[in-house]
Amino acid sequence: MGKNAIVGQSGGPTAVINSSLAGVYESCLACGAEKVYGMRFGVEGLLKKKYVDLATVLPTDVEVELLKRTPSSFLGSCRYKLPDWQTEPQVYEQLFEILKELDIGWFFYIGGNDSMDTICKLAAYGASVNSDIRFMGVPKTIDNDLMGTDHTPGYGSAAKYISSVLKEVIRDSLVYDIKSITIVEIMGRNAGWLTAAAALAASDDCEGADLIYLPEVAFDVDAFVEKVRTLQETKPSIVIAVSEGVKLADGRYVCELTSDDRAVDVFGHKMLTGTGRVLADLLSSRLGTKARAIELSTLQRCASHIASGTDIAEAYQAGGAAVHAAAEGHTGEVVALKRISDKPYQCVTDLLPIEQVANLEKKVPLEWIIEDGTQLSSAFIDYARPLIQTELPPMYVSGAPRHIHL
Amino acid sequence: MGKNAIVGQSGGPTAVINSSLAGVYESCLACGAEKVYGMRFGVEGLLKKKYVDLATVLPTDVEVELLKRTPSSFLGSCRYKLPDWQTEPQVYEQLFEILKELDIGWFFYIGGNDSMDTICKLAAYGASVNSDIRFMGVPKTIDNDLMGTDHTPGYGSAAKYISSVLKEVIRDSLVYDIKSITIVEIMGRNAGWLTAAAALAASDDCEGADLIYLPEVAFDVDAFVEKVRTLQETKPSIVIAVSEGVKLADGRYVCELTSDDRAVDVFGHKMLTGTGRVLADLLSSRLGTKARAIELSTLQRCASHIASGTDIAEAYQAGGAAVHAAAEGHTGEVVALKRISDKPYQCVTDLLPIEQVANLEKKVPLEWIIEDGTQLSSAFIDYARPLIQTELPPMYVSGAPRHIHL
Repeated sequence: MGKNAIVGQSGGPTAVINSSLAGVYESCLACGAEKVYGMRFGVEGLLKKKYVDLATVLPTDVEVELLKRTPSSFLGSCRYKLPDWQTEPQVYEQLFEILKELDIGWFFYIGGNDSMDTICKLAAYGASVNSDIRFMGVPKTIDNDLMGTDHTPGYGSAAKYISSVLKEVIRDSLVYDIKSITIVEIMGRNAGWLTAAAALAASDDCEGADLIYLPEVAFDVDAFVEKVRTLQETKPSIVIAVSEGVKLADGRYVCELTSDDRAVDVFGHKMLTGTGRVLADLLSSRLGTKARAIELSTLQRCASHIASGTDIAEAYQAGGAAVHAAAEGHTGEVVALKRISDKPYQCVTDLLPIEQVANLEKKVPLEWIIEDGTQLSSAFIDYARPLIQTELPPMYVSGAPRHIHL
Repeated sequence: MGKNAIVGQSGGPTAVINSSLAGVYESCLACGAEKVYGMRFGVEGLLKKKYVDLATVLPTDVEVELLKRTPSSFLGSCRYKLPDWQTEPQVYEQLFEILKELDIGWFFYIGGNDSMDTICKLAAYGASVNSDIRFMGVPKTIDNDLMGTDHTPGYGSAAKYISSVLKEVIRDSLVYDIKSITIVEIMGRNAGWLTAAAALAASDDCEGADLIYLPEVAFDVDAFVEKVRTLQETKPSIVIAVSEGVKLADGRYVCELTSDDRAVDVFGHKMLTGTGRVLADLLSSRLGTKARAIELSTLQRCASHIASGTDIAEAYQAGGAAVHAAAEGHTGEVVALKRISDKPYQCVTDLLPIEQVANLEKKVPLEWIIEDGTQLSSAFIDYARPLIQTELPPMYVSGAPRHIHL
């Protein structure tokens, strides 16, 4: 069996994907790997023989500590989808040749549901050629939409960012004694987990978002306008959280209300922007009240300056657990997080067959979406509140967070 | 002379305007004021007799400490402009009647250049009727555009937020091995101080924004596209910081390139949104590269979760200095910050006649804008870097920053 390990990062970045990388790296060394390589830009980069010996770029524990507090994907990422291995084995032959050259025994891939497809196919191809390389997935996505895991590393930090800045936006929106409407647009194409995190803004010192709209529930434009009109009778300033992916009952995205020529990303997903803007313009024209749209955009996925300490720790543990599983002979599996206690919150790592995760999507349970689809239940709060706990502040140098980069 | 003090907040909120309020409040008590009232929603609220006894809402030092770490204007704000006191004295008579009822001896107003106009007029009217009330201004604006002061409380925190999130956006933008353009739109109608803070992102771990465009320099669309095209030859990912207020040589705002029907705010200023979006669309169509626009919007003015410790301290000192000046008999003046040493940075409070500040605007010196108007000089960095130093983290409760509110 190969003496070395290789690890890649895939899909959209998060505030803690590098903490998982740190967990993989340090656990590989602890488990006896001779070298740990990092793929540059995922398997797509590996196919071009782009990789790095992590010992050369993480020489001391200070670099590893910085890595845990650096957002985005240190190694670079890709959105590359492997072809079917039975009909197009050439790519696999090429990849396994590179892995052989590097004397790889363990292969780790940190990513979301699209990326787990890569692990699934590599493990299957590996089995078909009797390879002894072990392929393990490490979960990662701000979207929290992976099946089989209590939650995903990356979600807690995005949720902490969303709830915290929403509190700031709510304070800001109350500053003048006039009617105002603020719409905060949050990521989430099909699953509303991120937007649901807006519910965590509500606390003793903040009444929270007045209305929260997730893609799980069909969006009714007229009912929306009426809700806001009614709220305005008792409240001058209204703050609304809305998912970029909210859809009308006929399946059209709300952001398509004004535009039909949306661009398409490399996966063929429609690019969604402007949902908040569309709704703000709608309210301005129908209610005559100034409405502002704030799009959290990529800020919400890379805000390591307000990352959740719990999330950073769990991301690290997930990386380490994948290594230990590989060392024990597991392959074709993905690490999951398993909550074993609610109050106090306790969570451990677990393993799942990768087919139970790849290409599937977990949505917010409909029973957690209450008040005509405009608020989240206490069951959601109990679920999500522990995930945003504690802080691991950046290392500030000259007033700004210090990062590590290649 | 009246035994009590009153304090108001005016204009746009900041992350540290409440720290100035805390400074006014605690210094008033220390200087012997019997009661300290807070105007609700500035003088506009005061005219409707909306005020609060601060002792009732800030009963212990924990509330005062929370106040320092709470964004936006605790008392509420207004954008009310007093009429000319010589031609319309009725409003003044009404205001002074209320001040007499409350037995006010000291009147403090925390605000920017529009708000200082209020202090200027009240002091002038007061002098004309031989009032012994002392009127003092406390500077506040994220825009940093007040004359006569080294910088304004509020700017340092906004600059720390802008430079920190820009570093995170730059890390995020580098994640895929493909060409990308990110345009970050930053506040600033006429003065480019906030956008200039993007230059603070550059450091040993970050190459910083590739291009920075301030309203001080006329924006040339063709030159801009050519700059980006040239940069793309050597760099896949390009991040551009642009002020919402950049204007063409003919005086039109860049955001007017696609729209002529911009709304107007209560001061008659044109509402500027979409500059980043306009430029991103322009680059996408001319260069064929996906371009993303991120608008920092109100997030940049209320981000107390990453406030500058230096800024919080100076805002508090500015509030306190106004009180001490009033206690010594000053009126019709505004506190300024005076830098007395560069390295190490040292700054003290000073006093200026309010006429030297009200309604004027300080822009970024042209000699600090270099490289064809696309970068800031080291003189700017030396000026701004000290203002974003040190951190005073929020009090986190249940994972989110705790605020205080009325």
